[in-house]
Amino acid sequence: MFGVTILGNNSALPAYDRHPTAQLVTLNEQLFLIDCGEGTQMQIARYRIRHSKIGHIFISHLHGDHYFGLIGLITSMGLLGREHPLNLYGPAPLIEIVELQLKVANTNLPFALLFHPLEKDGMILDHPKFSVACFETRHRIPCWGFFITEKRNPRKIIREKVIEYEIPAAFYDFLKKGDDYINKAGETISNELVTHANVPDSSYAYCADTKYTESLAEHVMNANLLYHETTYLKELEERAITRFHSTTVQAANFAIKANAKKLLIGHFSSKYEKLDEFLLETRSVFPNTDLAIEGVSYRIN
Amino acid sequence: MFGVTILGNNSALPAYDRHPTAQLVTLNEQLFLIDCGEGTQMQIARYRIRHSKIGHIFISHLHGDHYFGLIGLITSMGLLGREHPLNLYGPAPLIEIVELQLKVANTNLPFALLFHPLEKDGMILDHPKFSVACFETRHRIPCWGFFITEKRNPRKIIREKVIEYEIPAAFYDFLKKGDDYINKAGETISNELVTHANVPDSSYAYCADTKYTESLAEHVMNANLLYHETTYLKELEERAITRFHSTTVQAANFAIKANAKKLLIGHFSSKYEKLDEFLLETRSVFPNTDLAIEGVSYRIN
Repeated sequence: MFGVTILGNNSALPAYDRHPTAQLVTLNEQLFLIDCGEGTQMQIARYRIRHSKIGHIFISHLHGDHYFGLIGLITSMGLLGREHPLNLYGPAPLIEIVELQLKVANTNLPFALLFHPLEKDGMILDHPKFSVACFETRHRIPCWGFFITEKRNPRKIIREKVIEYEIPAAFYDFLKKGDDYINKAGETISNELVTHANVPDSSYAYCADTKYTESLAEHVMNANLLYHETTYLKELEERAITRFHSTTVQAANFAIKANAKKLLIGHFSSKYEKLDEFLLETRSVFPNTDLAIEGVSYRIN
Repeated sequence: MFGVTILGNNSALPAYDRHPTAQLVTLNEQLFLIDCGEGTQMQIARYRIRHSKIGHIFISHLHGDHYFGLIGLITSMGLLGREHPLNLYGPAPLIEIVELQLKVANTNLPFALLFHPLEKDGMILDHPKFSVACFETRHRIPCWGFFITEKRNPRKIIREKVIEYEIPAAFYDFLKKGDDYINKAGETISNELVTHANVPDSSYAYCADTKYTESLAEHVMNANLLYHETTYLKELEERAITRFHSTTVQAANFAIKANAKKLLIGHFSSKYEKLDEFLLETRSVFPNTDLAIEGVSYRIN
């Protein structure tokens, strides 16, 4: 199971019972929280999510609608007796804010809070079964998007080929991981000769807050699901540019550039009570689009 | 109109759709916010309160369930274009936390945020129509209660007496404020000889988080409405002491000591789903008690 559950889909001001940004990615037994606007811990409770399973929290940037709920969530995890470590990724000043708030409350967390500052584009988490990379978007303050990959099953061995090339069974596990084999004669047997590629990796791209920027597409190519903000409808493109946000049509064009299989849109301005127009405008350019609706989970693979 | 509306009545962990502490005091055209747990701005929207009318915010202490919603509320006021000043009262480190969060977001508020650190017991706000005093409670970290007084109409002039003592009409406004009159012969005419006392002042006492401490009663004597925390039922008195909180019976005994006309109880532990027992236990000692229920307003005068 690889999917994302929307906990908040609104931009800066909460409105119409929509909440500020927070998304929960489920990757098999792992839960990743991306952004954590005010009220996220209540949203987690509302949708009966076990926050003890959240091992990694990624904060895109330090506008309040993306992180004001973090300190409350961390504090509650402590009050509930969490003992296993929590990994936190975000812009460097984030840890200063968290530590100051813990200090004035005279709070010692009962678990290790492991902070990983976001400093440059690239891999920030690499695990045998998944990886997370970050990339800087174009926003009013430093802001990071995330690209989460589920590494699928290892390569499949072609039985007649491993016999043909006389590769010992003890080496099969290395073949599955993609290694080449060097035989007794010192000849290299290329991995591709004796294995098949398995099903391709699946990936979720979270583009955070950003103005429309084509060059970001290189960081999120071929995602199964691409989340891109649509703060405004297309008629407010100028405002979107001024405020470093995007419109429906811009998100759709970005999805085309990035060759996304499916597009998810959110971060709706509180100007808009109804969201139908967002879907219509975006689908007119990129048909395979969904609205990010709170409480709804979207499959990634 | 002098009353208090409960926006959050729960202790540290949000539970059963109860929110962390926040109370809104209405005093004629003034709104005072006391404490501001996470989600307060959503509660304000839910109960259709116009937050532009909030002129003063009082934060009792720096445990998150009493202030994690403050930065979100302040930021939203800014986004909505507030221009008139906002007064903020709280423990000194509060302003450091707020300013750090504004700085990293590159936010300049469009209104003046006037911070008044709480440092010693006494008057913190004195206005012709109301006053607010603070007093330190007994909690795990520095914590302050507040005593809000509505100054009622000025003293009433006794017409036949002001004629008898030959007091000029130009001095009547001073008489109403309680001044004595010195006549041409240099004799002092005591105010009490020429005026009646008007209806007495009304007052609301907010005792914040505290362990049961009789000596605090001197700060909140004769309140029309006394809010005292009851984090636990009476059977958990030992836990209450250890954690610097109070029980039902302790709050009731405190109300007796302080000669309160009415008692309001809140800050319920998330251990408890139902609150009936809180009311029964407290009323068994102090009958004129109400539960602080979210969304409900309680008259003070």
